[in-house]
Amino acid sequence: MKLYDRQGTPNAARIRVVLAEKGLEDAVEFATIDLLMAEQKQDWFLQLNPVGKTPVLVLDDGLALSECTAITEYLDNLDGKPVLTGRTPREKGLIHMMQRRAEVLLLEPVDDYFHYAIRALGAAVEPWRQPEWAGRTEWGERRGTQVAANLSWFEGVLREQPFLAGEHYSMADISLWAGLGFARAAGLERPAGLAALADWEARFEALPAVQNRRGKELLPEDLSRRG
Amino acid sequence: MKLYDRQGTPNAARIRVVLAEKGLEDAVEFATIDLLMAEQKQDWFLQLNPVGKTPVLVLDDGLALSECTAITEYLDNLDGKPVLTGRTPREKGLIHMMQRRAEVLLLEPVDDYFHYAIRALGAAVEPWRQPEWAGRTEWGERRGTQVAANLSWFEGVLREQPFLAGEHYSMADISLWAGLGFARAAGLERPAGLAALADWEARFEALPAVQNRRGKELLPEDLSRRG
Repeated sequence: MKLYDRQGTPNAARIRVVLAEKGLEDAVEFATIDLLMAEQKQDWFLQLNPVGKTPVLVLDDGLALSECTAITEYLDNLDGKPVLTGRTPREKGLIHMMQRRAEVLLLEPVDDYFHYAIRALGAAVEPWRQPEWAGRTEWGERRGTQVAANLSWFEGVLREQPFLAGEHYSMADISLWAGLGFARAAGLERPAGLAALADWEARFEALPAVQNRRGKELLPEDLSRRG
Repeated sequence: MKLYDRQGTPNAARIRVVLAEKGLEDAVEFATIDLLMAEQKQDWFLQLNPVGKTPVLVLDDGLALSECTAITEYLDNLDGKPVLTGRTPREKGLIHMMQRRAEVLLLEPVDDYFHYAIRALGAAVEPWRQPEWAGRTEWGERRGTQVAANLSWFEGVLREQPFLAGEHYSMADISLWAGLGFARAAGLERPAGLAALADWEARFEALPAVQNRRGKELLPEDLSRRG
């Protein structure tokens, strides 16, 4: 298998943790996509993923899988022993719901802030981010302000149970963790008082499959130097 | 089980087809949420789904499942014989990828057009749709214009194979079908020349589980009368 991604981004981190958890890091060849030069928007990459985003996992039979949930479902079920996507119908439902919560309430608004408010990927990606639209900065900022309130919802869940879907961690926790790192890298401050979330984050980051899998994050100050 | 939804909306249609396909229509009690009166944004409903959207499936043990993918994973696996979400790792990955394509390329931009450009749900829902933001109409219109180009991508897939994930239909086809109905109800014209898509739609609508499950769509002209 071959994985196209760019370490330092939230979605690369999500799949790197899945690979580690499943013991599959040595089964994959890694190829870096230069996001700062908009390589993900070039024709050859759009053939792999029409949405123009990383990561993409190309299987040995040539199928190009994109979308983190899809790649995770594939990898987690390869050995017939899923541990991240649920075993019972109830677990599957709950984990997929929490996966969407982490995306809708955290990863997606941070992504909009990152691309429209601070335009962190710089000049090369501008043509794909509606540069002629005067309202895009305000849109990005509005999305960024939603994050703080949304984090309170996760705080409430994690006061009641150790992980998003109950007693065990799942792909939804991976997504929440990636989203928190993304928000930090984008410069969005975390509100004070989210003690259960902080406790969860410390426990999650101590997991063997999570340690050192985030990569050096793309920080706005690094990115601005690239222009 | 109890399903809170509102027939005539794309997400209600998606779950109604899943219930029919799985022979579970009689296992569910249905409760209608009055979207035009913003019942989905009231405190009692936000306790079931913090995102404030339908449908929500409440299980007999009290778990409130939301998000169509999550509800579909639950229902499809209840009998141990999944037919909509994949059986092999490869099928699961491919179906989940196509599910996100139907959402990202169709359902989500139509939803933005529906809520921000034509504000189809009317006055009661306005407070939850950033009414103080001057740019929201343009944002919605920009999202609406993306739909035509995105449909070409589905056309390309369906020229190569009978359904989105291959030889058999899956939850991704249900989502594409719901998205096409949503676009039509919102008044977005389908570009000419998408013959494979039209052929797929005719075949899909002839399936026993799909017939008569869409419900009478909420049309802008109906909605405007509610104000």
